[in-house]
Amino acid sequence: MIVFLNGNFLPEAEAFISINDRGFLLGDGLFETMRVVNGRPFRLAQHLERLTRGLDFLKIKLPFTPKELQKFATELIAKNKLTDSILRVAVSRGPGPRGYSVKNSGPPTVAMTLSPLPESNPDEPLQWTLVTSPFRVPASDALSSFKTSSKVLNVLARAEAEERGADEALLLNTNGEAAETAGGNLFWIYRDQICTVPTGRGVLPGITRAVVLEICQALGFETNKRVIKPEMLRSAEGIFITTSALGIVPVVAFDGEPVAPSPLVDQIATAYNEMLLRE
Amino acid sequence: MIVFLNGNFLPEAEAFISINDRGFLLGDGLFETMRVVNGRPFRLAQHLERLTRGLDFLKIKLPFTPKELQKFATELIAKNKLTDSILRVAVSRGPGPRGYSVKNSGPPTVAMTLSPLPESNPDEPLQWTLVTSPFRVPASDALSSFKTSSKVLNVLARAEAEERGADEALLLNTNGEAAETAGGNLFWIYRDQICTVPTGRGVLPGITRAVVLEICQALGFETNKRVIKPEMLRSAEGIFITTSALGIVPVVAFDGEPVAPSPLVDQIATAYNEMLLRE
Repeated sequence: MIVFLNGNFLPEAEAFISINDRGFLLGDGLFETMRVVNGRPFRLAQHLERLTRGLDFLKIKLPFTPKELQKFATELIAKNKLTDSILRVAVSRGPGPRGYSVKNSGPPTVAMTLSPLPESNPDEPLQWTLVTSPFRVPASDALSSFKTSSKVLNVLARAEAEERGADEALLLNTNGEAAETAGGNLFWIYRDQICTVPTGRGVLPGITRAVVLEICQALGFETNKRVIKPEMLRSAEGIFITTSALGIVPVVAFDGEPVAPSPLVDQIATAYNEMLLRE
Repeated sequence: MIVFLNGNFLPEAEAFISINDRGFLLGDGLFETMRVVNGRPFRLAQHLERLTRGLDFLKIKLPFTPKELQKFATELIAKNKLTDSILRVAVSRGPGPRGYSVKNSGPPTVAMTLSPLPESNPDEPLQWTLVTSPFRVPASDALSSFKTSSKVLNVLARAEAEERGADEALLLNTNGEAAETAGGNLFWIYRDQICTVPTGRGVLPGITRAVVLEICQALGFETNKRVIKPEMLRSAEGIFITTSALGIVPVVAFDGEPVAPSPLVDQIATAYNEMLLRE
């Protein structure tokens, strides 16, 4: 596997970062993950736009423009001949002296890697069981708008869910409302409305979340951004999770109770898969 | 400078970690920082004990025992001839496949580095100005007991304080109570009591915080663990911050208002410095 690091393409086994990189020491960075289809990263522009907003917020100045990052991504995909894969762009503030202060740090570290798609079987489509996590995200957090590299809470929530035999963790916010999942955004169906949590309540504004809201509009489905307590999720007529890496993932069980399959979720997933191929 | 990495001692410029290290990508790790005095890391046992509790919580299994880490630290200090310095121990879950799941990751990355002490002038002792940060920590957070590597909030709080011309940021928790500072624990003096915030409200149980509570007992000073709103801090008879790297740092201004110097803070700082040399 060839990876991109700070302007160079090199074998993964030779791609190293400094022991003093603030990404490694302090989670002081950002990342984006996206699906590559037919050699092109899906919704790359939106991902780079969110990354740029995050970089502005963190005051990290990249030595590359979004246009250059796009060119590097295309080159990386071609070099690896992985036209159907998952692309990750990781940026950190780079090496720095000891301590929290950002003074005298940098230049930023910019890394891009590709991963093959998870093995899939058309007879066994991806479906997840979801459990409510004991870990909570802050209900109001300036940082939740950005995909920072400080993700130990999400890591532990996912690990705890997997230990309980589930696939994914539902994170509540500090108000006790459903916020998002360890690795994605939450959607549910209630009275034929496609519902998701409004941003600004501990929710990352996911790119695939936005795509699903577009799709619902195109299909004429009513949408509703609303707050929900986890106990109310039990009466949902369908639940699904959106992630940029995996797309639409239907939830088949929530906290041990089966969730009925929803034809609406199937229609959204079909429209999403068509969009992946079309764009 | 020689550093320690995964069992080896090597020049800093040759010490690299994988581009797929989960510390770099997800802040999935822990660290400890401590003062080295006369060649010995101060309160190393307590730091390693907190690190071990954190590793247990994160389910990261180190290939070294605390005793071996202690031996490596001693060796590192000797190799660098830095008998008065700051030691940082950083641990991550190590390299892993894309995504939040901890499956198939590792072995952990273990790094130790030394930094020289900040330049000090006996005529100008270290003193800080403190400002209240717009960033807030969760009031109840299982993770705040551990010094994880997911510290982007602390980084941004410190940077924002520095932009305002201050030295350090006071972090409130989501209840609006004073919790800790970007890089240390908060103490204040009120009616001759030495006060600090109780743990379990978004507060890291700092090792130097514990040392100060010990010192107060030895000096016969009354202590009080209590919750405080930032506006009440203005009527404090003294404020100081504790960090393992810098010790006792008196606060000379809070939110732009001068804080009176306190003879009690001086006595605690003197006792702390004596303890550093004695242990």
